[in-house]
Amino acid sequence: MNVVVGANQYGKAEVRMAAVTRGPERHELSDLNVSIALSGDLEDVHVTGDNANVVPTDTQKNTVFAFAKQSPVGEIEEFALRLGRHFVSSFDPIHRARVHIEASAWERIEVDGRGHPYAFRRAGDELRTATVVCEADGEWVVSGIQGLIVLKTSGSEFTGYIKDRYTTLEETRERILSTAVTARWRHHGSSIDWLGSFTAARSLLLERFADTHSLSLQQTLYAMASGLIEERPEIVEVRMSMPNRHHFVVDLEPFGLENENEIFRVEDRPYGLIEASILQPGAPPPGPAWDPYPML
Amino acid sequence: MNVVVGANQYGKAEVRMAAVTRGPERHELSDLNVSIALSGDLEDVHVTGDNANVVPTDTQKNTVFAFAKQSPVGEIEEFALRLGRHFVSSFDPIHRARVHIEASAWERIEVDGRGHPYAFRRAGDELRTATVVCEADGEWVVSGIQGLIVLKTSGSEFTGYIKDRYTTLEETRERILSTAVTARWRHHGSSIDWLGSFTAARSLLLERFADTHSLSLQQTLYAMASGLIEERPEIVEVRMSMPNRHHFVVDLEPFGLENENEIFRVEDRPYGLIEASILQPGAPPPGPAWDPYPML
Amino acid sequence: MNVVVGANQYGKAEVRMAAVTRGPERHELSDLNVSIALSGDLEDVHVTGDNANVVPTDTQKNTVFAFAKQSPVGEIEEFALRLGRHFVSSFDPIHRARVHIEASAWERIEVDGRGHPYAFRRAGDELRTATVVCEADGEWVVSGIQGLIVLKTSGSEFTGYIKDRYTTLEETRERILSTAVTARWRHHGSSIDWLGSFTAARSLLLERFADTHSLSLQQTLYAMASGLIEERPEIVEVRMSMPNRHHFVVDLEPFGLENENEIFRVEDRPYGLIEASILQPGAPPPGPAWDPYPML
Amino acid sequence: MNVVVGANQYGKAEVRMAAVTRGPERHELSDLNVSIALSGDLEDVHVTGDNANVVPTDTQKNTVFAFAKQSPVGEIEEFALRLGRHFVSSFDPIHRARVHIEASAWERIEVDGRGHPYAFRRAGDELRTATVVCEADGEWVVSGIQGLIVLKTSGSEFTGYIKDRYTTLEETRERILSTAVTARWRHHGSSIDWLGSFTAARSLLLERFADTHSLSLQQTLYAMASGLIEERPEIVEVRMSMPNRHHFVVDLEPFGLENENEIFRVEDRPYGLIEASILQPGAPPPGPAWDPYPML
Repeated sequence: MNVVVGANQYGKAEVRMAAVTRGPERHELSDLNVSIALSGDLEDVHVTGDNANVVPTDTQKNTVFAFAKQSPVGEIEEFALRLGRHFVSSFDPIHRARVHIEASAWERIEVDGRGHPYAFRRAGDELRTATVVCEADGEWVVSGIQGLIVLKTSGSEFTGYIKDRYTTLEETRERILSTAVTARWRHHGSSIDWLGSFTAARSLLLERFADTHSLSLQQTLYAMASGLIEERPEIVEVRMSMPNRHHFVVDLEPFGLENENEIFRVEDRPYGLIEASILQPGAPPPGPAWDPYPML
Repeated sequence: MNVVVGANQYGKAEVRMAAVTRGPERHELSDLNVSIALSGDLEDVHVTGDNANVVPTDTQKNTVFAFAKQSPVGEIEEFALRLGRHFVSSFDPIHRARVHIEASAWERIEVDGRGHPYAFRRAGDELRTATVVCEADGEWVVSGIQGLIVLKTSGSEFTGYIKDRYTTLEETRERILSTAVTARWRHHGSSIDWLGSFTAARSLLLERFADTHSLSLQQTLYAMASGLIEERPEIVEVRMSMPNRHHFVVDLEPFGLENENEIFRVEDRPYGLIEASILQPGAPPPGPAWDPYPML
Repeated sequence: MNVVVGANQYGKAEVRMAAVTRGPERHELSDLNVSIALSGDLEDVHVTGDNANVVPTDTQKNTVFAFAKQSPVGEIEEFALRLGRHFVSSFDPIHRARVHIEASAWERIEVDGRGHPYAFRRAGDELRTATVVCEADGEWVVSGIQGLIVLKTSGSEFTGYIKDRYTTLEETRERILSTAVTARWRHHGSSIDWLGSFTAARSLLLERFADTHSLSLQQTLYAMASGLIEERPEIVEVRMSMPNRHHFVVDLEPFGLENENEIFRVEDRPYGLIEASILQPGAPPPGPAWDPYPML
Repeated sequence: MNVVVGANQYGKAEVRMAAVTRGPERHELSDLNVSIALSGDLEDVHVTGDNANVVPTDTQKNTVFAFAKQSPVGEIEEFALRLGRHFVSSFDPIHRARVHIEASAWERIEVDGRGHPYAFRRAGDELRTATVVCEADGEWVVSGIQGLIVLKTSGSEFTGYIKDRYTTLEETRERILSTAVTARWRHHGSSIDWLGSFTAARSLLLERFADTHSLSLQQTLYAMASGLIEERPEIVEVRMSMPNRHHFVVDLEPFGLENENEIFRVEDRPYGLIEASILQPGAPPPGPAWDPYPML
């Protein structure tokens, strides 16, 4: 054969499921988007179309729904582990399962000062995420947050950078800093108080963003990520991707007005994109935890 | 001439502006998306390309930025009125100005239990909107909300509808009801406590959604809208557009499981779309308040 | 009652359907997105939740699929008319049906210089549209196009406009003109060679865009729309909505380079938005043909 | 230090540029979206906010515009190489530059059977892509295509897969197969007839999709990718990501109709996602060619 099959994975993506727990006094709601990717002995299905080793993506979808009924969904890291372990342990040809879950947050609607027992309002487009990779003799859990949009109207400067013949940007001691945080953090082990860890991590990210006097967005990213490494022993690595959402001071001089960092135009594109991995010294190797999904 | 110019409008759309008020103790942030549409003596520019009556859209954009500096932005209804009145009063050929503003909500980041003076987190993708139409001798103000996503896990049924040969839907006494509310409400006059009115209207919409036992989404819409008509004398008409975001009970019987309204698949498309205008009896005529923007 | 129900409509939106005609030599493909809105005696469902006059949106969806099987889909105007007439004639409480269809275009994949009998490639995101309104004693048909993105690198100027204290734009004799055309045109009657009319209209829009030396985007819009009025007697009104997708000449002087209209930055927002209705003199009144859908 | 900085990169993303070449007889248009990511000695900027090694993203943007003026843009692989080599060779702290370019395709508008000299229509949302990574002593070029949407109404089956207690899918000998192809292919070396190679690769992908009788989407992916490996010696690896856009046969029995693979509902989510790398035997190692961008 003059063609080789390399890395590959397949699965059902974006299974949208709502799961309701109907307690006697009030209901609980899980609103999830579940994506599964399996890999293993899958050369034949590529080369000859023999599906003997293929767990259909339709079955994967059914499994998500059935598992949510068989036991409570719980924290998304747990649900992802249940699913991932199932695929690897139930099907010999499947050697690795990656399960990625995004959870939307909902708040109870307030009526007469009290949370309604079964009426909810979606709390924005911020997502809590979990990515789990299971193999026969190893598993990795990455938690995260996405769509956390933050902004500072002060406490951000940018100076001292390289200048060359293409530089026109002027140094500034005061600018708006705004970004949409995507952060994921890798855990040590898989027996963790997931909710407590997530809540603490989210607060740390926000506090560090607010309290760091920013000399660059890289420094802000580091301050945020190192908060998780320093304060949360269960977290061994943090990866963050932060677009710099530029707010430019509008030139109002033509209209006889001074603009002392008050009026900004907001630009969609282009944007800066700042990305880094921040680790605990001696962090265990990540294995397949960060392999890209989708691959492209 | 064998071709006639009918209704027309033009302007700058989606001017993205952030305006910061730098108080001694803390900053305030307005994050706006401003769209302007002007109409008037504009036949010539269409037929011959004579721009003598055209206020360039670039100038409209500059005016937004300059006006935000000249006095505080304030409530979006006020800012839209300032802009609309300006275009109609400053340029003889311009007979009507429509200004539409969308405002994103931001909350202060909590640090040590207190709101940070200048660090913010965007509070979701819900938007507060204002649409103002100004003419020489009339003005109309419509306030609104968009992207308010709500869901009830109980208290919603759907029965007693028409059946024909194409009906397969079964009646239900218990279903999930979920929608993304777009609501706009027309005011009587233009001197109103805009913030107070908006805050009360938003609460009424949420409470009525939560407290109405729903027999149909139309009835829920009516209950929500009539709350504004009944409780807020300054509001003379409410228009709402509410997609029915279907949550279907998953059939788990093939897996030997019962699904008592617990596990749902969420469908993007198709969706029901329920729309209505609900009015005060004897509401003044709307004039151009609801003319579509964009036109198509 | 101190609350009045005004204009309202409801229906199933975005029914995504593919219909295949399996000819002996080759297959034909219709790829449609169908949205339906019904109105009539629907006060009760709003006020009391009585669904006795409601044709469920689920039934509407089923009807789309069944009708596509019962006879060939044909041109989208015809299919929309079949659906619209059905709802108005079959259900007494339903007085008006609006059916809006968007069709994606697909081309056959070329293999060895010939179109494949059953393998297709989607020809871009341009959509052909039809909006039909049916009442007991009247019907209106509007055809259209959406997402037709065009650009001229020459033959466009902008001068002679109003200047005021907020004007900074400089006049230009040479600029890039780019827009995404949304056009809809209303027909006289409903017995028309829909495909022939659409094909001719699309060509006219493109040719007029290319051949008109543009003094403003309004003039270009007029030239395009008046082409349809002048050349196609079956078309009595054209409405167009055209964003001005700004391409700004980049200032390369800081780098010792001259930029003679060669290098442009493309801006997403803000954009100009130019909209107009262009009519045949004495065009019949539009009735409900242009009523907005969605309403907000 | 109890926190370690791992892999990181930063740069300007989505620089939208149009470049016009104004020939005597006709104009040529390049419509690009350029994203740059640099890495190197950047620990300090993270830890202390010292920007001494930082080439501002604003400068990167300026460089894109200036380079497009200094010499013709040419093929996107060449333009990406020019930019990537510049950053690595001009700035000592920068050890690696990744440049990703997406190009929109435009066709001349036909007037009187001839292509217009300077009026264009965008040919859909399909994109041609190039990703280049430059280091001091190595460079990698990956070409690609995105948004190529294809569909077969016959010649696709799915049988012989694993069944378990969660399987409900029935085997089928005839189904619609539809996907949106994202493909990227890695070249041997960086002196290639880029346009010729791209054109041939795109044709091969389409022909193989059309001509392969599909037993699974994996097999179709393999057939498409192996075409590039077999026919194009300059291509050493192909990576593809293909969503299975499900078209489900609508059950028309309740309406007394048979549906012989004619009427399908099209589902947005969930979808299958099939991904693989297909290689030349003995392909040189990819180095950083496939490192994810963005990282998350």
